[in-house]
Amino acid sequence: MSSPTGPPVITLDDIRSAQQRIADYVVRTPVINCEVISKRLGCGVSFKAENLQHVGAFKARGAVNAVMSLSEEDARRGVVTHSSGNHAAAIARAAGLRGIPAFIVMPENASPKKIAAVESYGVSPVLCGPSTQQREQAAAELQQRTGAILVHPFETPAVMAGQGTVGLELLEQVSGLEAILVPVGGGGLLAGVLVAVKTIRPEVKVYAVEPALADDTARSLKAGSPQPPTRYDTVADGLRTQIGDHTFPIIESLVDDLFLVSEASILSAMRTIAEDAHLVAEPSGAVAFAGLIDNADRFAGRSTAVIISGGNLNFGDCQLGRN
Amino acid sequence: MSSPTGPPVITLDDIRSAQQRIADYVVRTPVINCEVISKRLGCGVSFKAENLQHVGAFKARGAVNAVMSLSEEDARRGVVTHSSGNHAAAIARAAGLRGIPAFIVMPENASPKKIAAVESYGVSPVLCGPSTQQREQAAAELQQRTGAILVHPFETPAVMAGQGTVGLELLEQVSGLEAILVPVGGGGLLAGVLVAVKTIRPEVKVYAVEPALADDTARSLKAGSPQPPTRYDTVADGLRTQIGDHTFPIIESLVDDLFLVSEASILSAMRTIAEDAHLVAEPSGAVAFAGLIDNADRFAGRSTAVIISGGNLNFGDCQLGRN
Repeated sequence: MSSPTGPPVITLDDIRSAQQRIADYVVRTPVINCEVISKRLGCGVSFKAENLQHVGAFKARGAVNAVMSLSEEDARRGVVTHSSGNHAAAIARAAGLRGIPAFIVMPENASPKKIAAVESYGVSPVLCGPSTQQREQAAAELQQRTGAILVHPFETPAVMAGQGTVGLELLEQVSGLEAILVPVGGGGLLAGVLVAVKTIRPEVKVYAVEPALADDTARSLKAGSPQPPTRYDTVADGLRTQIGDHTFPIIESLVDDLFLVSEASILSAMRTIAEDAHLVAEPSGAVAFAGLIDNADRFAGRSTAVIISGGNLNFGDCQLGRN
Repeated sequence: MSSPTGPPVITLDDIRSAQQRIADYVVRTPVINCEVISKRLGCGVSFKAENLQHVGAFKARGAVNAVMSLSEEDARRGVVTHSSGNHAAAIARAAGLRGIPAFIVMPENASPKKIAAVESYGVSPVLCGPSTQQREQAAAELQQRTGAILVHPFETPAVMAGQGTVGLELLEQVSGLEAILVPVGGGGLLAGVLVAVKTIRPEVKVYAVEPALADDTARSLKAGSPQPPTRYDTVADGLRTQIGDHTFPIIESLVDDLFLVSEASILSAMRTIAEDAHLVAEPSGAVAFAGLIDNADRFAGRSTAVIISGGNLNFGDCQLGRN
């Protein structure tokens, strides 16, 4: 991994290699065009449905790429990671595919459904406090104890490259694509998509969308360096992480703009995706669409892709179908 | 339209023609393979996601085929239909695409969301009682008054042929397909899929699934002729209709078996589709999957397609994302 001041940590070649490496283990997710939503917003909306990915999130891509990239010797040591949820399940699944052990740290405020998903792959997560420091410390201790290889949820280059395959697929699937909206938490998906899209078709605009309650990336772009979160309570649990030291320089140099969205906008976007596009998005998965709804005038008449990054939603007491 | 005792009302050629005729106006919906569900049920499950179709249901296919098949002279008279909802919206949309008037009868117990969908295409539906007789009488009166052409929700051959394109696509999309589960209400989708699949690959098993509270097709198969429903209150509102006089002979001669499912199974299947496959199915859209869950042992190890026929679900007071 090169440093923030060195050469870019990933290139288009890394993403193309990732695409070949992961092809047999991940879903080439469909792009869904919803006529009703496009008409209402006045632009051509293409949902990249990563909620239909294995483990219900794009995280399956980076995890498989990282685990399948390990040398035989490294692989035998197993992998360790920390994650609010979807990356954790993705690593548990990828390790299972390769037949190696996985050691996983999750914040204690992770959604019960995401903890259960990790357990369904035969891995019992170690719980810790919610801050980036607490997560990283717990993972470091676990790594020291087990000797396993760290697969960071967004800083590991092979993870970023894997997530970037979403960008490659979008360019292949949507002819005449003009803009892409991407949710940002740690920045792995955004950095990967930026490197893929801006290398191949730099004229395509790429926008980051971030919960206003987790605005560390917005503040980091203003400050010119990664800034810590000030709170960890956005409903978009997948985006509570701090922007990465390695993802930030890529984002800073390539992203076209960033939109902040309210909690109400996120919940409303999630409902619209369910009611009109008939897809289940988790809160983090609806953040990019919230950014489009709030800024629809900026996308008028443009072919716009919106990444639905994940779909692991707990329906709790909802009486679905009892109307 | 030939009679039940005459030659088959549709052939594979009709379905192939429909596929070409509707290609520019409908979605070739994706097939979604959910790893978690396949593992749990012990068979390879492929969801044919017609909830991602325009108007949120397979009905877009038959409606477009019927409307686009009309001669210029007939088209100018407009179209009339009766429907519990999705066919109504599909006809309103198809008529709009061709620029002709649509006159639509809906039962007064149709879901408010489905009535609103029709209105969104600029058509005000005429409401009537819920029985097949009440619907048909209201439509006949409207037809007499307007001179429009009747496009029946399942008896019109062009509608059946359009729905049959779901079967053609499944054979193209799922290699090694061994079984298909199809919900049955009036029987248009089932009859169309049967003609397509049993003509091209007769060894593929096709099963009908019906709510136990709307078991008219099950009783009709036993009696050897179409039997009326005894009640109209299954949560699967799209399947409250009586099996058709023209769809029944096709179904009777080609279907491999029929499963009845309880209301609880339908609601549980809908929730599993949302929580694990991250797709929104309406109750009728989850009926086929309920049939698979209830009879999983009969599908062990087999490549099985499940048609999610629609996704127009009203989330009502559900606090999505607030867990």
